Amino acid sequence: MKTQYYTATTLDGFLATPDDSLEWLFALPKPEGNTYADLIANIGALVMGSATYEWVLAHSGEVEAETGSSWPYQQPTFVFSTREQKLIPGADIRIVQGDVRQHFPDIKSAASNKNIWIVGGGDLAGQFYDAHLLDELILHVGAATLGTGKPLFPRLSQRGTLHITSVHHHGPGFAEIRVEVKREGAEEWESK
Amino acid sequence: MKTQYYTATTLDGFLATPDDSLEWLFALPKPEGNTYADLIANIGALVMGSATYEWVLAHSGEVEAETGSSWPYQQPTFVFSTREQKLIPGADIRIVQGDVRQHFPDIKSAASNKNIWIVGGGDLAGQFYDAHLLDELILHVGAATLGTGKPLFPRLSQRGTLHITSVHHHGPGFAEIRVEVKREGAEEWESK
Repeated sequence: MKTQYYTATTLDGFLATPDDSLEWLFALPKPEGNTYADLIANIGALVMGSATYEWVLAHSGEVEAETGSSWPYQQPTFVFSTREQKLIPGADIRIVQGDVRQHFPDIKSAASNKNIWIVGGGDLAGQFYDAHLLDELILHVGAATLGTGKPLFPRLSQRGTLHITSVHHHGPGFAEIRVEVKREGAEEWESK
Repeated sequence: MKTQYYTATTLDGFLATPDDSLEWLFALPKPEGNTYADLIANIGALVMGSATYEWVLAHSGEVEAETGSSWPYQQPTFVFSTREQKLIPGADIRIVQGDVRQHFPDIKSAASNKNIWIVGGGDLAGQFYDAHLLDELILHVGAATLGTGKPLFPRLSQRGTLHITSVHHHGPGFAEIRVEVKREGAEEWESK
């Protein structure tokens, strides 16, 4: 099982505008040969931050139009939030707080040998990286720049930890870059 | 002839650290099948900002070790700078100031039907984009993140102007993304 940060990003490394708009993403031509179906089939649990969760709640109409459901995930979903959150009836949503390492055994158990998807945002993915719990970045790089906004991955990566394993062209709107995170030197506090 | 912004960038859209270090870039495994030789053979003129030029001056030893010369370019080079700059004996360096549109006819003439390379930084490339004078971004995306630093392209791109034309995998250290800039709606003030 792997922990995968799968996200769309602009060419200049932003997930969204400063006010969390994804308009740039929806304006692009749809990715050709998208790998989402392959990804989600192997995901056992989702992890997201509060802003990402609140975005889904606030855009339930768009999410339903796109996917057929206002909450398209069957998998248990862990939401890291220090704020109180509205739950969605019928969805397995677990609101948690604090250190990602503390919750990782539960997340791993919920994923039952399938992969874990870090949906976003960038700082949450960074917390998994810091804790040596991130295995892969799967970046759908969109043909747009924002100049400012919510950062893809607000971290100084450690030398030698990131390795590009593949790149794909998904039409004029997207390039996909897969990056393996190597854990040499990682503390052995958690055996995966 | 095309105006090309050819640069290396981190996955999160930075050219360099806040203090202009490129240590992240030199730490990566060398790109496999790099396209620099093909690029430079078709370049008739270079354009760079003052920080980029000063970086080359300050790192002449490293540049010479890498390329055999402390100034490896034969082509006329336009340096946009409001500061006084040291010149390099034997190099065709032209210090200019102000609006990129004002200097474009001279740059184009110096390039004599070959391409123009915008070396950096990101804001200078953005000025060419704003002026509808940028045709292509050729990004060597390195397997590193900085979290903060000198931005790749501090611009909100206009909808529909950027199109990814190709992607290549240059080993574990680099992905190359080529992006065509379309000029529909561009003001017709300069016929190229």
